[in-house]
Amino acid sequence: MSENKILQPTTIIIFGATGDLAKRKLFPAFYNLYIDGRMPERFNIVALGRAENTDEKFRDYIKENLNEFSRKDVTSEDWKGFESHLTYFQHQLDEQQSYQDLSQKLQTFDIDYGTRANRLFYLSIAPNFIETISNHIKNTFLASDASKDRIIIEKPFGHSKASAIELNTLLSQTFQEEQIYRIDHYLGKETVQNILTFRFGNSIFEPLWNQKYIESIQITVAEEVGVETRGAFYEQTGALKDMVQNHLLQILCMVAMEPPASLESGEIRDRKVDVLKSIRRITPDKVSHYAVRGQYGPGMINGTEVKGYRQENGIAEDSNTETFVAMKFYLDNERWQNVPFYVRTGKKMEKKHSYITIQFRPLPTSTFSNSPFELSANRLIINIQPSMDIRLQFMSKKPGLSLELKPVEMVFNDFACQEDSPEAYETLLLEALLGDLTLFMRSDQVEEAWDVVKTIQEYWENNKELSFPNYQAGSWGPEGSDALVKRQGHKWV
Amino acid sequence: MSENKILQPTTIIIFGATGDLAKRKLFPAFYNLYIDGRMPERFNIVALGRAENTDEKFRDYIKENLNEFSRKDVTSEDWKGFESHLTYFQHQLDEQQSYQDLSQKLQTFDIDYGTRANRLFYLSIAPNFIETISNHIKNTFLASDASKDRIIIEKPFGHSKASAIELNTLLSQTFQEEQIYRIDHYLGKETVQNILTFRFGNSIFEPLWNQKYIESIQITVAEEVGVETRGAFYEQTGALKDMVQNHLLQILCMVAMEPPASLESGEIRDRKVDVLKSIRRITPDKVSHYAVRGQYGPGMINGTEVKGYRQENGIAEDSNTETFVAMKFYLDNERWQNVPFYVRTGKKMEKKHSYITIQFRPLPTSTFSNSPFELSANRLIINIQPSMDIRLQFMSKKPGLSLELKPVEMVFNDFACQEDSPEAYETLLLEALLGDLTLFMRSDQVEEAWDVVKTIQEYWENNKELSFPNYQAGSWGPEGSDALVKRQGHKWV
Repeated sequence: MSENKILQPTTIIIFGATGDLAKRKLFPAFYNLYIDGRMPERFNIVALGRAENTDEKFRDYIKENLNEFSRKDVTSEDWKGFESHLTYFQHQLDEQQSYQDLSQKLQTFDIDYGTRANRLFYLSIAPNFIETISNHIKNTFLASDASKDRIIIEKPFGHSKASAIELNTLLSQTFQEEQIYRIDHYLGKETVQNILTFRFGNSIFEPLWNQKYIESIQITVAEEVGVETRGAFYEQTGALKDMVQNHLLQILCMVAMEPPASLESGEIRDRKVDVLKSIRRITPDKVSHYAVRGQYGPGMINGTEVKGYRQENGIAEDSNTETFVAMKFYLDNERWQNVPFYVRTGKKMEKKHSYITIQFRPLPTSTFSNSPFELSANRLIINIQPSMDIRLQFMSKKPGLSLELKPVEMVFNDFACQEDSPEAYETLLLEALLGDLTLFMRSDQVEEAWDVVKTIQEYWENNKELSFPNYQAGSWGPEGSDALVKRQGHKWV
Repeated sequence: MSENKILQPTTIIIFGATGDLAKRKLFPAFYNLYIDGRMPERFNIVALGRAENTDEKFRDYIKENLNEFSRKDVTSEDWKGFESHLTYFQHQLDEQQSYQDLSQKLQTFDIDYGTRANRLFYLSIAPNFIETISNHIKNTFLASDASKDRIIIEKPFGHSKASAIELNTLLSQTFQEEQIYRIDHYLGKETVQNILTFRFGNSIFEPLWNQKYIESIQITVAEEVGVETRGAFYEQTGALKDMVQNHLLQILCMVAMEPPASLESGEIRDRKVDVLKSIRRITPDKVSHYAVRGQYGPGMINGTEVKGYRQENGIAEDSNTETFVAMKFYLDNERWQNVPFYVRTGKKMEKKHSYITIQFRPLPTSTFSNSPFELSANRLIINIQPSMDIRLQFMSKKPGLSLELKPVEMVFNDFACQEDSPEAYETLLLEALLGDLTLFMRSDQVEEAWDVVKTIQEYWENNKELSFPNYQAGSWGPEGSDALVKRQGHKWV
């Protein structure tokens, strides 16, 4: 969330630089930042990989991938400038010597810069390597300057509250909290970032933003994709841990938080933790009242037959992993007392669509109460992706003779030019380069978020769902999802 | 504002049927209502004129004018159906015998209908004939059935509070109040009618619609035209009486009124009178503080040189008549305490544009207070004509890396298909046929509105404005208009 600052010379060290994330997201993000003039004037990207390779070959590999994944075109001039910053470095994660060699390499850059550069470590690796890497970094003093050295890690941040605490403790032995950038890429999305501006940069929305005027809030993150090549990982994870504990709760925090006193990152993260703390914890006997899980069976998406989850690669024939979750939260604070926050997320849904719906209360007795007109309650829809607009639904006179009413929409569509909008990873990497923690998850956020889902998580692990598969691929989830909101007279919109 | 009802057989009697208003507005409106199936199944239009004429010739004359002024195309089939309802009737306004003859004519229609039809008298004549016509209608019992007979009159409804009371008293000798339809055609406009729905059919606007959240309200009715052929009339009138006392105050009532308990016309008109009563009356020494008058001199509109007011036909060389008014009102009630309502209207302005601006208060201390970002206060713009949209201006994140804010707009544009939107006169004539008084002015509304402008009117009549002409044709009025709002830190938007 920072303004432009002059960026210090920086060496970026990517663990797992030959992996999928690096290929699809990280190098394209750095490349686009570079084109936009947002990279530090002096920087190097050190790509770590297990295999032997040359800079030339690695650069060719990156260029090829950029052609496929970069938001902006790859011109030969831009590429020429960019590739000179790329170095391949053969590295064994579990060998201390390899870190010592890396240290020497980084020093050669520092000598070149004429200053000890900032170091940004990006751990684009499976979480089970974090401990090894972190310890070696500690032992070889690679990140010993807390004011200059930062580490970016990807979710999952643990797989339960206990393991998250363990991971945070482990990281804290090498890094101070302000050095740690835990990425939730949803927080890098333009439309999610804009929630802060929308709510607190305007005088007309906050007065309505509470239980007095809002009836319910819905957050939907629907994916059209399935588990793709991630079957083995997903089997151990499921939608609750993969999506709800992080992305959906983070969006919920943005929507529900109290106004931060300033844009200072600690202030904003404090207000988010407040939200997580205020979420009502439930007892195991309430789990099926508050949450519904689903798993897709075979179905049709866009006219194409698709397999069920249990037929995917690496999935057990009797898998109990949920690919869909719908649940409700209550925030026990003054602002949100008794307002249900419905969230749902699933794979192989009818279409990709992430959005937030603010459902306002219907009018009490009004001028129109004794009229024949049916009034729809007002609704604000914040589309996150793929559409990126904000829609305000209200009642208006139908054009024409005599008074008839109809619901209409006011639309704000500024983010529509998506080619101009940076990818979430560009935003997040720039923030990390700038040293602004606002868009990243602090340890207590992660731990509280695990605490929020703890009871459900344990109940589901201990109680098999016998109805699986319970929704067709290409649908909007199991019947229980609709029933969950219908019980309170609501519906998914 | 009525729903569809079955319309009783009706005879429409137009006084001044060969005049300009009848040609441009009335016959086209009846014709379009006819095409839309909104006229009573059985009706006749009796066109009164002083000269001798045949039905055939008069029908030809109407058809010719429809080709020019009708919203919808004139097809030979539709015309054939419509023209059979048109009768020309030679009539002398000041001869009792002429009314007796008319009475016989109306009876022949009644015999034809098999029932005493509703009668709708439309006085499309200069106001000085109202007394004569009204008295003759009374003496010949033409409108003796209060439940069936209605009279529509056009502004001006008097030229001062005293003369308005006089006129109302005069009318009351022939008609009961519920028989009298005083037209303010602004109330027939789609966008003006929609204010009621917008405010009271939604739950999210009313909570913001008061002095706590609104800083000021502006109403602009800018005309590009000058006095055209109405010079002699306009010399005696001026913008205050021609526009402010009626159109602008009526719009102000729609914006400012308390929620009516129902859509019943008496209820809505009561709430409007409440607004007029609450408007702060000023003393003569405050006039120049509250109001600014202007008169256009020569200038340019759309690249064409245009004459000044004093050079127009029928205008005195030293005319003191104002063609522009800007002023502010305060409503001394709980909702609007200390919120200035700025209104302005003028002829020969830069362009034709009528709109309402709701200027919300700026944010108090906020999340962004210590940020480098400048926040524009929220604004709601209701465009009345020629554009017919509603725009909500708010702050949003500028798409792109790093947090920057900019003011943006959400637009509702449903009335844009103007060919589908009925003309104000269609709406108003249909309401009069249906017997719904909501969109018409009650006697007390008219009298209160005169009372509101009384002091200014008298002051201006007694004190010549020496700076006339004080604005150029094609501008937005005299400097004093900007100064009026600037004194309070505001500006016209």
